[in-house]
Amino acid sequence: MGLAAGPRAFLVSVGNELLIGRVVNTNAAWLGRRLTELGFAVAGCIVVPDDLDSIAWAFTAAVERGARVVVSTGGLGPTYDDMTAEGLARAMGVDLVLDEEALRMVSEKYRGELTESRVKMARLPRGARPIANPLGTAPGVEVEWRGALIFLLPGVPAEAEAMFASHVEPRLRSLWQPACRAEAVLRSLGVPESVAAPVVREALKLGVYVKSHPRGAELGAPLLELHVTAQGGSCEEAREKVERAVRFLAEELGRLGARVERVAP
Amino acid sequence: MGLAAGPRAFLVSVGNELLIGRVVNTNAAWLGRRLTELGFAVAGCIVVPDDLDSIAWAFTAAVERGARVVVSTGGLGPTYDDMTAEGLARAMGVDLVLDEEALRMVSEKYRGELTESRVKMARLPRGARPIANPLGTAPGVEVEWRGALIFLLPGVPAEAEAMFASHVEPRLRSLWQPACRAEAVLRSLGVPESVAAPVVREALKLGVYVKSHPRGAELGAPLLELHVTAQGGSCEEAREKVERAVRFLAEELGRLGARVERVAP
Repeated sequence: MGLAAGPRAFLVSVGNELLIGRVVNTNAAWLGRRLTELGFAVAGCIVVPDDLDSIAWAFTAAVERGARVVVSTGGLGPTYDDMTAEGLARAMGVDLVLDEEALRMVSEKYRGELTESRVKMARLPRGARPIANPLGTAPGVEVEWRGALIFLLPGVPAEAEAMFASHVEPRLRSLWQPACRAEAVLRSLGVPESVAAPVVREALKLGVYVKSHPRGAELGAPLLELHVTAQGGSCEEAREKVERAVRFLAEELGRLGARVERVAP
Repeated sequence: MGLAAGPRAFLVSVGNELLIGRVVNTNAAWLGRRLTELGFAVAGCIVVPDDLDSIAWAFTAAVERGARVVVSTGGLGPTYDDMTAEGLARAMGVDLVLDEEALRMVSEKYRGELTESRVKMARLPRGARPIANPLGTAPGVEVEWRGALIFLLPGVPAEAEAMFASHVEPRLRSLWQPACRAEAVLRSLGVPESVAAPVVREALKLGVYVKSHPRGAELGAPLLELHVTAQGGSCEEAREKVERAVRFLAEELGRLGARVERVAP
């Protein structure tokens, strides 16, 4: 049960604004979707405040939970409370060191006008490499630690997405050959979720993952959405599993009195 | 640095849909805001898939990180992959037991038509109490464990919010007398974040928390938003700290060439 197979990925989101509810964590949803599409099992997301000890804990926990890839967002800027690189260095038990390439990146952005707050953005955990930021000023960071590949991206969504596309995704594609993934979405009208539950459980034996979402009612009849996903060594295998489960669900829920239609893909 | 003082609270969000990015975690933002307003320091949010081991880990980690209050959302429904109560029971090392009051709640919702999938929603970790769900079918759960008060709420936002308002908030208010919190928001036009950084750092010495957010530029001049918050034993004390910091920031950033205006409250 739980998530489909695939190397485990973890997300770390850094920023008080996420925890006090001033900002909704859309970065995690975006990264979760992209990593899933690339074949990873996103096994957790840890949101922590701008606090060294919390940040260090989050990276340690992700790696101890078996993450092969960790992607963080937030805390890479010039201010005193941007401390993701330092928090990761603390977790790794290494120093922060001034990286020449990162310094060149930062210096270019500010046309050579460097201040201590700006130079700070070029201090990386020892052993790490900077990632170019095409849209903003803070470089990203890539480093390996305890069998995991860790990427630190900025919190500004446009910057994080651009750097994921230009750097993280190509790196992941070069290292992992992900399995193929297929999905389908069904709408079932006429049986409540608790009645559909035993059928859904039975469908799992076909090697798929099924999640049911109650969507209220239509003309008094309970409406359910069923998301069916499967992975396979080949795309054909994944598709076949999904099709078998879709047929099974339509037939069995129909037998219970539901009208079932496929809404995607 | 980090979050303001106040008893530590943690959020646990359960559901594959959050990790694969099909759903954005608005529950965490809503709960984070409410807990912050009640005077808690929201010190982390852990998002885990529908998987017993992951759920048990999340509750254990929250408590080990010093949470006095843990609020989870998701995984309380009738389907096979709703397993938050069982995951918490595993963490606590106790059985799931059929709770008479919870069973009465569930039975009422279904007018006595109980099935195994429905009865499942009345199985709580030993020692827990059910929380009435005014909008949906799955009861919530309240239990104490290792010095923390743990609340399990459903994942449907309207249900979680209603149960927080009707049950969780009154419970928290009866147990903790929170400190008062004040805030202000400033807009600074004309200096980049990296130049404002030393001034912001200096303002922290006034007992406030300041977070700066770059908001692009206006007519070529960099625009920053500064959020100033403080807590105090009394509301007056919190307000005074904020006012002192606002005056300091306006004066010092003005000295660097910025135009500073207060936009809230």
